[in-house]
Amino acid sequence: MGKGRIEAFSDGVLAIIITIMVLELKIPHEAELTALQPLIPVFLSYLLSFVYIGIYWNNHHHLLQAVRQVNGNVLWANLHLLFWLSLIPFVTGWTGENHSAALPVAFYGGVLLFAAIAYYILTQVLIAYEGRDSALAIAVGRDWKGKISVVIYAIAIPLAFLSSWLSLGLYVLVAVMWLIPDRRIERALLS
Amino acid sequence: MGKGRIEAFSDGVLAIIITIMVLELKIPHEAELTALQPLIPVFLSYLLSFVYIGIYWNNHHHLLQAVRQVNGNVLWANLHLLFWLSLIPFVTGWTGENHSAALPVAFYGGVLLFAAIAYYILTQVLIAYEGRDSALAIAVGRDWKGKISVVIYAIAIPLAFLSSWLSLGLYVLVAVMWLIPDRRIERALLS
Amino acid sequence: MGKGRIEAFSDGVLAIIITIMVLELKIPHEAELTALQPLIPVFLSYLLSFVYIGIYWNNHHHLLQAVRQVNGNVLWANLHLLFWLSLIPFVTGWTGENHSAALPVAFYGGVLLFAAIAYYILTQVLIAYEGRDSALAIAVGRDWKGKISVVIYAIAIPLAFLSSWLSLGLYVLVAVMWLIPDRRIERALLS
Amino acid sequence: MGKGRIEAFSDGVLAIIITIMVLELKIPHEAELTALQPLIPVFLSYLLSFVYIGIYWNNHHHLLQAVRQVNGNVLWANLHLLFWLSLIPFVTGWTGENHSAALPVAFYGGVLLFAAIAYYILTQVLIAYEGRDSALAIAVGRDWKGKISVVIYAIAIPLAFLSSWLSLGLYVLVAVMWLIPDRRIERALLS
Repeated sequence: MGKGRIEAFSDGVLAIIITIMVLELKIPHEAELTALQPLIPVFLSYLLSFVYIGIYWNNHHHLLQAVRQVNGNVLWANLHLLFWLSLIPFVTGWTGENHSAALPVAFYGGVLLFAAIAYYILTQVLIAYEGRDSALAIAVGRDWKGKISVVIYAIAIPLAFLSSWLSLGLYVLVAVMWLIPDRRIERALLS
Repeated sequence: MGKGRIEAFSDGVLAIIITIMVLELKIPHEAELTALQPLIPVFLSYLLSFVYIGIYWNNHHHLLQAVRQVNGNVLWANLHLLFWLSLIPFVTGWTGENHSAALPVAFYGGVLLFAAIAYYILTQVLIAYEGRDSALAIAVGRDWKGKISVVIYAIAIPLAFLSSWLSLGLYVLVAVMWLIPDRRIERALLS
Repeated sequence: MGKGRIEAFSDGVLAIIITIMVLELKIPHEAELTALQPLIPVFLSYLLSFVYIGIYWNNHHHLLQAVRQVNGNVLWANLHLLFWLSLIPFVTGWTGENHSAALPVAFYGGVLLFAAIAYYILTQVLIAYEGRDSALAIAVGRDWKGKISVVIYAIAIPLAFLSSWLSLGLYVLVAVMWLIPDRRIERALLS
Repeated sequence: MGKGRIEAFSDGVLAIIITIMVLELKIPHEAELTALQPLIPVFLSYLLSFVYIGIYWNNHHHLLQAVRQVNGNVLWANLHLLFWLSLIPFVTGWTGENHSAALPVAFYGGVLLFAAIAYYILTQVLIAYEGRDSALAIAVGRDWKGKISVVIYAIAIPLAFLSSWLSLGLYVLVAVMWLIPDRRIERALLS
């Protein structure tokens, strides 16, 4: 089974998720700076989620590139990941509209946690299909970044009830971790 | 006529359907757990519809993979299927918002029924084009799963007026039927 | 310049247009049949527009299949067509919500007219690029269907102020004209 | 790393951006011409933004055509561009709804400015990857159009507080500049 359509479908869903989030930036009826003020937390949560969807698209792109064929298990593991990512616009809007109150921030972390687990499952399903000594298995390696992310989310979720800003800081930290040192590791793995 | 664009267009429509359904999860203005309570039935109907669209995408993927070329009839049979699937967000939202009242659940079943019939028509149009002894015709076989689904929907629709939960249970049953034993049959057909 | 991306982008835009129209079917708050009654004209205008977008996608598919390469003119002629088609959800919703009042129906016809003209321009730009004796030019032929459509729209628009139902009947007639006898002509042209 | 998916994802995002803007054309409840009057500025800002997204899609298409492979930097430079473009529906709606008041027009210009800068960065990242003497580097040349655009935006933004119509005129001017003389330059560069 070719991988072209799973890529096309995932691209479509991710493109829609990333774009409909902007609809939460409700257009103000006044043309004044003060009218934009309540939109600032919505904008910041949009920015964070945009980066997260970007990271997922990026990693998804890399992951499927190392794969030649897919089977039914892969299709469903992929849909499972897309399901959790499809909830990101909801938790993004909820967090933004409530100025980062504890509960929405905790739910945001919950969705990130389940998306991370879904991504891990997708990786494992692909490795099971490609083989333990495939290029994919070697490239994924021990996947410490994926594991650390899950741990940080698990800490950040209860933490939201103490300080939602600390939780959001941890989500930003995970995003930065995926953004910056990616290439160094990639090179290390490829060498 | 190549099949690339029919796949791309269907992927686009299905990706949008699966993603706009989440917009029915209206973001609550309060940051409390009680604010999420009215969203639970909306979420559950979203989950069911997500799985259904996933199944259709999956089956559509398999179906077109067994095909080499398409003609005008196939394009219209495909659009007919997409039309019924495009109504799923409406019946999903109606069912969710009315806590699974009888009428929305019956309409939900009606859309599932017509989508199943449209899928059956698409299969037959493709077999007519590919030939009765084509790989596709053999892979589809007697299509008992498709036929049983139609029968179950036809029972579930009037049943909604007795117990909408029983109807929803039957819709879940059909979804599970398509999800689980798929591979065993596939193998049987391929052997 | 390859034609792959112009197809992909058009598929994306058409898939979104065809799917967001369904958002005009506002989910009723009651679970009763009477709550669906005001949705009937909205549903019928959705159905008509779905068929129209389907016809355009279908014809667009055929048109670009006869083409090998595209240039900047083609890209802009294509965007011009997509612009008019992007207004179809607006006139569809306006027509449906106002129970086919004269003005929305006339505007609907206006958008159909400009879309038909835009499609004609796209055809001519492609023929100018491919050459007067290309397979495309022969396949398009005199394009009497395109010309008749424009004439019917031009009649139907002022007619809406006498009887909007007669105008809508003419729009349906054009759709049927494109749906049904297509293959016979196709065969005639190919023989 | 192939460029197919970056094209597909960008096409998806741009197709959604261009299409969801039309949702700002809120369907009036009355079927009269006066009901359309408040929509005229919304329509005009939609038209301008449609042309801008069209130009970006067009240029993006050309840019990636001159490229063979992409790396992680390119993916992020591309996402950065898509981020700014994703804000165009917001500033379009804000400008349209407030009849081109100073502040929304200035913000519109700000988003255009940052999108132009993001496009410049994408170009530079691609040239850095392809090499200073690549076909891409030669085709882009000194990129005076990109630089002039940035200068015009930088003038138009403060100008909005004197006359928002003058600012909008400058945005139209930049759009026309990209639309019309493109081909002459292209030919000059190719000869």
